[in-house]
Amino acid sequence: MANSPSGESVTERIVRVLETFDTDRTVQTAAEIGRRARLPSSTAHRVIADLVECGLLERDEDQRVCLGMRLWELALRGSRALHLRQAALPFMERVQAHIREHTQLAVLENDETLFIERLSHPNAGANITRIAGRLPLHASSSGLVLLAHGPEELGERVLAGPLEAVSSETVTDSARLRRVLAGIRRDGVVVAPGSVEGVSTGVAVPVRERRGQVIAALSVVLPREAPTRPAIEELRAAASGITTALAAQRP
Amino acid sequence: MANSPSGESVTERIVRVLETFDTDRTVQTAAEIGRRARLPSSTAHRVIADLVECGLLERDEDQRVCLGMRLWELALRGSRALHLRQAALPFMERVQAHIREHTQLAVLENDETLFIERLSHPNAGANITRIAGRLPLHASSSGLVLLAHGPEELGERVLAGPLEAVSSETVTDSARLRRVLAGIRRDGVVVAPGSVEGVSTGVAVPVRERRGQVIAALSVVLPREAPTRPAIEELRAAASGITTALAAQRP
Repeated sequence: MANSPSGESVTERIVRVLETFDTDRTVQTAAEIGRRARLPSSTAHRVIADLVECGLLERDEDQRVCLGMRLWELALRGSRALHLRQAALPFMERVQAHIREHTQLAVLENDETLFIERLSHPNAGANITRIAGRLPLHASSSGLVLLAHGPEELGERVLAGPLEAVSSETVTDSARLRRVLAGIRRDGVVVAPGSVEGVSTGVAVPVRERRGQVIAALSVVLPREAPTRPAIEELRAAASGITTALAAQRP
Repeated sequence: MANSPSGESVTERIVRVLETFDTDRTVQTAAEIGRRARLPSSTAHRVIADLVECGLLERDEDQRVCLGMRLWELALRGSRALHLRQAALPFMERVQAHIREHTQLAVLENDETLFIERLSHPNAGANITRIAGRLPLHASSSGLVLLAHGPEELGERVLAGPLEAVSSETVTDSARLRRVLAGIRRDGVVVAPGSVEGVSTGVAVPVRERRGQVIAALSVVLPREAPTRPAIEELRAAASGITTALAAQRP
């Protein structure tokens, strides 16, 4: 529909424009957006003008462009991420009140770990993840849980590699990764010291919907030397609570 | 760009499709979307197919359509709402730990109150608001704060009416509303019993960025008969903390 000579749809060009925004780049000029989206200047200006017209982008007093609240509203209002996150938040707060580090909720999205919620204590240790940020599945404790319970063909595709080393301790050997995944399915938890950052240990458990399917991973990021048992107990209780809350939310 | 015979851009049609999703309607058939978006069936199917292709919509096993995680990710990753909400959340949690009802963060969006975060105690009283939900500015305590500190022409436009009664106690008299707004600017807080729901009292304070501009309203929703002073003190401390956190976030 309404394809450009390159065969690209208007929708694809819109996505390319939206993709140029991220945590470190919330305000850009139209020229910067065009360059980062690799769109001809006139095309970029037209797409941006259309998006501003619809409220999906906004201009500030200097004519610089940022994401519109309207986009945020449309994306969240009807999203399953919001449902899941709303069900999970009270339980995440309970984990956070006891463990006081980072508590995170992640889902499988396009073969990666997408973090949809994170609570952090002001004095908590290092943590590389961000809300709406991604990490490779085999790297973080959350990703390992999602991979262990994901579709079989996804597991085989990831195991076939290449397995990028996010830190020097990321599991990049496919035979070892296979054993780790089997261990997660057996134990219902993973403890992954140093797999993302040398100074931290990730601990993650699966979150299931009422029929038992794993729909998310709940995790904490602890300082490397911290005991993991209290976190495992908190996470298991919280995951079970989320399952119950989800069942109540959608009869 | 790529306008239809009706003069509507592709972007507008995309927005109309996305608008059909909300909290109570997270999964729809293509036919339902087309009907609700008032688009011809063939147009609706093309727009949906394009959006699915880009990951902004997803299809389930029954070919029903829901918002894609990719949309959620694009909307949040670079959004100022996420920045504000991340700065505010630890302070909202502190309010919530003490007041144990509903704690909310709202911004002005397109002449309405848009709620971007809400924490609720499991045993808290009634509350009509939702995350990514809206209320008229003059109805809720949050909206009154945003209106009191909003652009002057916005205030005059709202005061010119009509002023919808969300509850039987919503202020719908423009002279009285003008006095309420002046009181908010003078006192830095509003207590609005019954203005949204008869059983509740909203209490809201302004949240300022470091230069003093009001960028959000922080509020609690209390049972009608609850004392308001502890909430006012908590909200003021939290709003001040958010201002400091925002200043630290963006040097």
